[in-house]
Amino acid sequence: MKVYYSEAHRGHDAPFEILEGGVSVPVFECPERMERILAALATTGWAEVTPPRDFGLEPVRAVHAADYLHYLQTAYADWQAEGGQLGIATLSPVLYPATFPPRRGRGKPRSVVGRAGYYTMDLSAPIVAGTYPAAAASAGCALSAAEDVARGDRVAFALCRPPGHHAGCDYAGGYCYLNNAAIAARYLARRGKVAVVDVDYHAGNGTQDIFYEAGDVLTISIHADPARQYPYFMGYADETGEGPGAGLHRNFPLPPGTGDAAYLRALDEALALMRTFGPESVVVSAGMDIYAGDPLGDFAVTAEGIRAIGRGLAALRRPTVVVMEGGYNNEALGENVVGLLSAFGGD
Amino acid sequence: MKVYYSEAHRGHDAPFEILEGGVSVPVFECPERMERILAALATTGWAEVTPPRDFGLEPVRAVHAADYLHYLQTAYADWQAEGGQLGIATLSPVLYPATFPPRRGRGKPRSVVGRAGYYTMDLSAPIVAGTYPAAAASAGCALSAAEDVARGDRVAFALCRPPGHHAGCDYAGGYCYLNNAAIAARYLARRGKVAVVDVDYHAGNGTQDIFYEAGDVLTISIHADPARQYPYFMGYADETGEGPGAGLHRNFPLPPGTGDAAYLRALDEALALMRTFGPESVVVSAGMDIYAGDPLGDFAVTAEGIRAIGRGLAALRRPTVVVMEGGYNNEALGENVVGLLSAFGGD
Repeated sequence: MKVYYSEAHRGHDAPFEILEGGVSVPVFECPERMERILAALATTGWAEVTPPRDFGLEPVRAVHAADYLHYLQTAYADWQAEGGQLGIATLSPVLYPATFPPRRGRGKPRSVVGRAGYYTMDLSAPIVAGTYPAAAASAGCALSAAEDVARGDRVAFALCRPPGHHAGCDYAGGYCYLNNAAIAARYLARRGKVAVVDVDYHAGNGTQDIFYEAGDVLTISIHADPARQYPYFMGYADETGEGPGAGLHRNFPLPPGTGDAAYLRALDEALALMRTFGPESVVVSAGMDIYAGDPLGDFAVTAEGIRAIGRGLAALRRPTVVVMEGGYNNEALGENVVGLLSAFGGD
Repeated sequence: MKVYYSEAHRGHDAPFEILEGGVSVPVFECPERMERILAALATTGWAEVTPPRDFGLEPVRAVHAADYLHYLQTAYADWQAEGGQLGIATLSPVLYPATFPPRRGRGKPRSVVGRAGYYTMDLSAPIVAGTYPAAAASAGCALSAAEDVARGDRVAFALCRPPGHHAGCDYAGGYCYLNNAAIAARYLARRGKVAVVDVDYHAGNGTQDIFYEAGDVLTISIHADPARQYPYFMGYADETGEGPGAGLHRNFPLPPGTGDAAYLRALDEALALMRTFGPESVVVSAGMDIYAGDPLGDFAVTAEGIRAIGRGLAALRRPTVVVMEGGYNNEALGENVVGLLSAFGGD
């Protein structure tokens, strides 16, 4: 199995993130995650780790707004140049917004601090010098995998970092900047209908948002109820798509403590919807934070549960791009990724 | 001159705020500000410091949404009860949001962490145990001053803390929770047209927002250009009111380094608009962060400039409620407040 991976992610390494309560902690979404996954893949015998190919910006622009891409490309340099309030950019190597658009906010600020609030939904999408190059390479991994699948491969794995599923067409959030899964899905949709299924613990709000009115891409997300968990403002059961996309989005919000049986029942329902839709290809947003003991999750899905998810996805028998999303229990991360992928095995 | 002041503000004392770049600093909007102002007022001979009267919630509900008031009243207890991610409420005595509604966000979270993001626009409106009692007493100061003026007093000063002008009908922000000036203006508008003029360094976005479609309240704000300064998303020159309020809002965004002459030219234009409008009474949102050397501002208005602003406002010869807003140069804060008020002198 082709595994697309770029070392560029190492440049995306912020010193801290900010939780509710204003508490700074080391960033859970850290470079070590990739090392753990690569180490586990190296033991399998079937993983061919390969650098991504360059697709230029056109397939990224098919998903993300031009003004947002310009912001991502220039934000760090602008932050260093403008300095922030009290010259704070000289103290902080990382751009976080502190002010967000209020309801009925009308203007668009020129200041990069203001633009950061406009283009970011939370305090988990810091921008450092290496963020944009890492995000661009991560999207390149998803596109490389999508191209292989479009050319006839049964499966390919995009080992993406940063992840992507919280990024909307014009905003970053939740460790995500470019929506790798959405970029892959939009690329594949040139050849026929695509289904995206998101098994990360957190609702795939960005993917939902990007395809909410799309008639050619079915999107499904199984996740912690946003009424009580990030991303809070999307991922509810009554959000089912609009316009040409009406009926083509489904959310499965699940309670704390969800274990293998309950999770797999939701997945079975999702798989049935996908079969009815009849996609030419499938994109999987693969987050491992559903695993019992993930520090940011509270599900109780086991390693065997994650293998069963992989078997369910593989049983769709569709050309499939698996895209790495979250997962923060570093001890178990590599084994769980291998567990999910092994149903596709040496394909 | 009646000066309404409540000791309840002391309970509103968060340990830190978060600037852009994610840097935590001591809160600029701190209890010491009131001590400095009271000390300066004590030297004047004309300031009668008086506790606020109780007006109940009805005049507050005339400005703020019921769901937002419920949030303010319950947020701290809910934060303590829910605990936040990783149980972080046990580490942090202060509720800050970390996730804000993205564009096209649809759902309303149940979790108080999610609701904090819904009801707050930035990282400068922390909620601690004493926040709501302080905000309610602060609004009571504004209402007490408004009642005096409605009964025939020439002027009254509401020494409000927390300040109010960044709070919208349904959101907190910029150290503000209840919009004291707007509550006073809405109370006074029962008796005839009201003009609100905001001389704080930062745009009075909350006041603008609350009265944007109101036909009976003229609102004017003179401030740092939001293209480069907080609140970033409101306060632009082309925002002039809508519906019955069309033409009844004016913003004067000014450049860095604005000194007395340029400031007073903008004020003269504002005063001319107010005279044309012909209000029965006037509310002044009095921020002292226009003062040269304010740590959060970059204007160059002098102490004499602030006295001249007071003379301009007094020359309107309308019953006037002066409401305290920002100002963070504690050394000069008391003298500047006295300077502004002294044009109204022993009235």
